[in-house]
Amino acid sequence: MCNKENMGLNEIYTTLSGTIQLEADERLDDLCRDGLKLIQKPDIFCFGIDAVLLSTFSKAQKGNKVLDLCSGNGVIPILMQAKNPDTSYKGLEIQEVSANLASRNVAINNLESKVEIIKGDLKEAAKIFGEASFNVVTVNPPYKKANSGLVNPDSTKAIARHEILCDIDDVCQAAARCLKSKGHLYMVHRPDRLIDIIAAMRRAHIEPKRIRMVHPYVDKEANMVLIEGIKGANSYMIVEKPLIVYKRVDGQSGVYTDEILEIYNNKN
Amino acid sequence: MCNKENMGLNEIYTTLSGTIQLEADERLDDLCRDGLKLIQKPDIFCFGIDAVLLSTFSKAQKGNKVLDLCSGNGVIPILMQAKNPDTSYKGLEIQEVSANLASRNVAINNLESKVEIIKGDLKEAAKIFGEASFNVVTVNPPYKKANSGLVNPDSTKAIARHEILCDIDDVCQAAARCLKSKGHLYMVHRPDRLIDIIAAMRRAHIEPKRIRMVHPYVDKEANMVLIEGIKGANSYMIVEKPLIVYKRVDGQSGVYTDEILEIYNNKN
Repeated sequence: MCNKENMGLNEIYTTLSGTIQLEADERLDDLCRDGLKLIQKPDIFCFGIDAVLLSTFSKAQKGNKVLDLCSGNGVIPILMQAKNPDTSYKGLEIQEVSANLASRNVAINNLESKVEIIKGDLKEAAKIFGEASFNVVTVNPPYKKANSGLVNPDSTKAIARHEILCDIDDVCQAAARCLKSKGHLYMVHRPDRLIDIIAAMRRAHIEPKRIRMVHPYVDKEANMVLIEGIKGANSYMIVEKPLIVYKRVDGQSGVYTDEILEIYNNKN
Repeated sequence: MCNKENMGLNEIYTTLSGTIQLEADERLDDLCRDGLKLIQKPDIFCFGIDAVLLSTFSKAQKGNKVLDLCSGNGVIPILMQAKNPDTSYKGLEIQEVSANLASRNVAINNLESKVEIIKGDLKEAAKIFGEASFNVVTVNPPYKKANSGLVNPDSTKAIARHEILCDIDDVCQAAARCLKSKGHLYMVHRPDRLIDIIAAMRRAHIEPKRIRMVHPYVDKEANMVLIEGIKGANSYMIVEKPLIVYKRVDGQSGVYTDEILEIYNNKN
């Protein structure tokens, strides 16, 4: 299993395009996949298992162009490129501090030729990139409704978590405009929003085709959902085997299942 | 586990309201719940695990009025009344042969005071029973689209399996009209239709609130889905722990899980 590591403040990393120095509020984590690293600002938002699972659930074919919406620190395209060779990635992020972080994460991994981060609003995505210009869109959007338990709606963290600057309809409409016909949308979200997600996808003429429920234990409610939609496809849903994160072994809980270990070890 | 038994042709059963004789194409099965029996016509349709799971997934409170749409041989209300005391049931079935069978099943179990079967079209349900007259609607509707793999669209079996006389929108609209505000709809269906079901429920202003995926094994795709909706509720979905039917024990497959054994033994 991946051990996150803080590689030390003020350390200077030399990349192909220059040097990168960690700031006081940053740490450098090992992604445990092909030696990839990720600078994170814990005060803003840290990637979690949802990002890792989405990058595994999402598929891209050789030559595909992939757009990551709500890209945050860029973890999705950085992880995806490692398992999908000969694909190119754009990451769109509205918050300047996150977009800058994502660009530095691309640089620290020497991925400038594969991944480009753009600061911008997903409502403008089709103008920025062109209509129907991607084969695949990935997105780990804000999970919570704008008015749910919100303390400071201006904070970077609140914008990443709550539907303040975009909601699920904006996400699906942006994906629909950017995707080619029969292009694929991959999303991770919370099960409590599943019906809203499905309704928004259908309104955007992206048909939900494949769902995987993620359960912390086999006997617990799902706490994440992975969903794949295809632009302009007919109605036919496959609900895959449940993805179980932990198991109990000899009375000990919190033991990762074999599948989670395989995902973290990049075997699938 | 339940052992179905054919109790013999031409045998005469005495009930509180008279006598019932099995016909040549019928068999009598033991429902393994409170001594309940069910006459089945294998040429028409036999109830399966879907009906048993729906009757367990569905909840009714004391004093509730429950309507079962597409009632077939009446198995859902017959099973439900056994675990929900002080509730009353109507079963609506459009096909005369099935409605007659269901009425005889009510009689053979001496349930005439609790369960009434009505032959009729669910599109007329609100006229038959009155608008907003039920707390709960249950339904095990035809699973397949009308034009999918259909050989004989006039056969009783085809009408039970395919959306010939009603489709998922008709079912949800009928349920919405018959349910009181905040009344509950419980449905069992196939996962491949999940998006159609959710869309139809929302069109009928019945909000899907709880889903349980049924998987034959923990590592297989779902092959049934149980879904609960509430008329006029807000959006918030709970995806319950997966319901796993079989497990493999010491290399032997097809062994019922503990939960399925409990359901069949009527412990929950």
